[in-house]
Amino acid sequence: MRDQALSFAVSHQKDQLEELKELLSIPSVSAQPQHKDDIARAAQWLVDHLLAMGMQRAKVMPTAGHPVVYGEWLDAGKDKPTLLIYGHYDVQPPEPFELWHSDPFKAQVRGQNLYARGASDDKGQVFMHIKAVEAYLKSAGKLPVNVKFLIEGEEEIGGPSLDPFIEQAAKLLASNVALISDTGMPQPDLPALTYALRGLCYMEMEVTGPQRDLHSGSFGGAVYNPIQALSEIIVRMKDAHGHILIPGFYDRVRSLDEEERKSLATVPFDDEVFRAEAGIPSTWGEEGYTVLEQITARPTLDCNGIWGGYTGEGSKTVLPSKASAKISMRLVPDQDHEAIAQLFRDYVIQVAPPQVQVKVKSLHGGWPALVERNSHPIRAAATALERAFDRRPVFIREGGSIPVVNTFKRVLGIPTVLMGFGLSDDNLHSPNEKFYLPNFYRGIQASIHFLAELAKA
Amino acid sequence: MRDQALSFAVSHQKDQLEELKELLSIPSVSAQPQHKDDIARAAQWLVDHLLAMGMQRAKVMPTAGHPVVYGEWLDAGKDKPTLLIYGHYDVQPPEPFELWHSDPFKAQVRGQNLYARGASDDKGQVFMHIKAVEAYLKSAGKLPVNVKFLIEGEEEIGGPSLDPFIEQAAKLLASNVALISDTGMPQPDLPALTYALRGLCYMEMEVTGPQRDLHSGSFGGAVYNPIQALSEIIVRMKDAHGHILIPGFYDRVRSLDEEERKSLATVPFDDEVFRAEAGIPSTWGEEGYTVLEQITARPTLDCNGIWGGYTGEGSKTVLPSKASAKISMRLVPDQDHEAIAQLFRDYVIQVAPPQVQVKVKSLHGGWPALVERNSHPIRAAATALERAFDRRPVFIREGGSIPVVNTFKRVLGIPTVLMGFGLSDDNLHSPNEKFYLPNFYRGIQASIHFLAELAKA
Repeated sequence: MRDQALSFAVSHQKDQLEELKELLSIPSVSAQPQHKDDIARAAQWLVDHLLAMGMQRAKVMPTAGHPVVYGEWLDAGKDKPTLLIYGHYDVQPPEPFELWHSDPFKAQVRGQNLYARGASDDKGQVFMHIKAVEAYLKSAGKLPVNVKFLIEGEEEIGGPSLDPFIEQAAKLLASNVALISDTGMPQPDLPALTYALRGLCYMEMEVTGPQRDLHSGSFGGAVYNPIQALSEIIVRMKDAHGHILIPGFYDRVRSLDEEERKSLATVPFDDEVFRAEAGIPSTWGEEGYTVLEQITARPTLDCNGIWGGYTGEGSKTVLPSKASAKISMRLVPDQDHEAIAQLFRDYVIQVAPPQVQVKVKSLHGGWPALVERNSHPIRAAATALERAFDRRPVFIREGGSIPVVNTFKRVLGIPTVLMGFGLSDDNLHSPNEKFYLPNFYRGIQASIHFLAELAKA
Repeated sequence: MRDQALSFAVSHQKDQLEELKELLSIPSVSAQPQHKDDIARAAQWLVDHLLAMGMQRAKVMPTAGHPVVYGEWLDAGKDKPTLLIYGHYDVQPPEPFELWHSDPFKAQVRGQNLYARGASDDKGQVFMHIKAVEAYLKSAGKLPVNVKFLIEGEEEIGGPSLDPFIEQAAKLLASNVALISDTGMPQPDLPALTYALRGLCYMEMEVTGPQRDLHSGSFGGAVYNPIQALSEIIVRMKDAHGHILIPGFYDRVRSLDEEERKSLATVPFDDEVFRAEAGIPSTWGEEGYTVLEQITARPTLDCNGIWGGYTGEGSKTVLPSKASAKISMRLVPDQDHEAIAQLFRDYVIQVAPPQVQVKVKSLHGGWPALVERNSHPIRAAATALERAFDRRPVFIREGGSIPVVNTFKRVLGIPTVLMGFGLSDDNLHSPNEKFYLPNFYRGIQASIHFLAELAKA
């Protein structure tokens, strides 16, 4: 059965690419209301596709926000495990358009890469599993395990609707293990399994100085400027060693033991490549940790946006009333995003100059995640990756957040396999997002192997 | 002649108000390209008005930017001085509209105030002198001194066209003294002559961290965030005592001697009223100076705007490539705005973290000004104000900038009388700008007296 699927997959690579390009042509940008119809169109496209390839059921299911795509094939038998394959069909906004070398919604192959918004994050990656399932269904007419698909449309907006949906649909989604491909690998030829993800605590604050915008000539010199106050608050977030100064911030951070640091040290990671990809002359982060540890295993704090006063052309002599910033923290096990939000709020109020008022609100929170490495699904995934890539995978931590991993554990009681195929130069969330095509095809093979290995349980 | 003019002015107050309302109805916003026709319309309206009331010549004169209105009446005789009356017909943008209680371009009288964009700054104030000249021409048929009007359309954008225009038209504009009403008075019933103005040095800087926007999950923790770097630069501009830290910044500041501090201390100034007008719980400024000194006699530094990263709704997890700020400094005699711009640039480069790049550019500069208090025109102005208000004027410094005062001195070799009628709650550059009407009428009388007193030389 596995061999039939593998050869079907290899002989249909042209179709797989064309179909992915079709999916990528739908601008399903979840953050922008003008793309609401495109969101609906992408969801329906997936349902039609799942049904056409032989899934028993597939439907667009409403949530409080953007809809979810659900699909199932459950005839592997009761003795076989059920796999829940998660992905998301929504994408980041493409702006700024002028920095793209080709239309973000007309996928273009250049060299070995496919360029389009969503190519890697996450349409390309979830589509690999769809194609693996198709390969089984169209060649052998069946799957080695039971499979459910859950493909959401709000991942890029930290959508609030998925968790309630999973809670309501817990019975429908009941499974033994989840599979997500929305992570990366350290090198194009080196597969990886991610065993830890960072959580997120995303805050916004607004500093008010004077109650209205003032003329800087008439009032400048005796009024605390809210941009200055905001800058002071931001500067007090970290010390010169990159250490975050919010009291209690590190209290629940699981420290890295020597064994894990040694294991992480085996992951190929080239600081110079990192600098080139980031476009920076030198790295800067928390003292005492390697760059790889800084970006995956340690909590961080970054300003994501700042605004206030006059930001147009030329010189308006305003002493502004307000200034605002978005600040987010990446969290590691066992930090609690709600507790961190409270510590952040308390600290901001504490360090703000008394001449200004500060409002702090929490925009989004997600839990960090840790996966048990020594389990059947992880071993099955490691074997599958080794078969597809002809190389043992490395075990890595990832710096980003996939909050649903925690939801699956909490609501469905299942672990998640994080088998990712993205590369660090994929330009996620940036212009010229791309997917390395050789790994699109190897990913399909890895998924075929994984279904077969998982069935061995 | 003076008495005829005074009684004409008093008996035509209704007309004066209606005509001002008509001028205020033209949205001559110099900063906004969509108002280019309105700028032209306002200039033509003034020319028509000057001609209709009996000026010998009046015309719209082109500049490299918005046009200038010129008018003259030169039949007072060669033994009489020539007065150059300067004002500006352009106004600040009205935004945000929703905070206005009435349409900014449909002037409305509420209580003793006239509300409209430009009511005080500067249409209302320049119009007083037009009405004073009209009162002479329509009653006595002549003026006690020769008068030239120069009314520009780029004041609110720090227009670069006026200085070259004055240089080219120096012969046409040749005069003995200039008069400007674009300043204020400390109380509604207490007239004032301004003898010092602050200059301006307006800078913009752009900090670049990574060469492109990055995903804060994948890169956060090892990349110097440009918003953080910008905040650090801003924080290093001032110490905790409100002292500006740019090396050399204070080198050419003329310090306040005891006599001047005593004179300034006689100017009624209520810190509580200042706080209420600014809408702040407490003032904050350079230690060792009164609030009035801080806002008029000492140099300052303020952030006028800041922007970078994601500033829309919700939570985008971007580690931005760039962050920018507009920072301006109010200068006092004898600071040189070009030298200060260079000191600012050097300091920013010096304090910027080495992991980021900073571009600094100068957007605008203006010289501070000092007027000799013991001169015939100032004495004439003091007498005129005393007659109109029945109270001796106080001598004040003003925190704002009127760069043309320096241009008049440099190009035409003439001093400027700064006879202002604005009040600190006039909401200049803010929603609900207004002019206190009793002083509109008293200002017309003061102007009539000033022409008569000036002729006595």
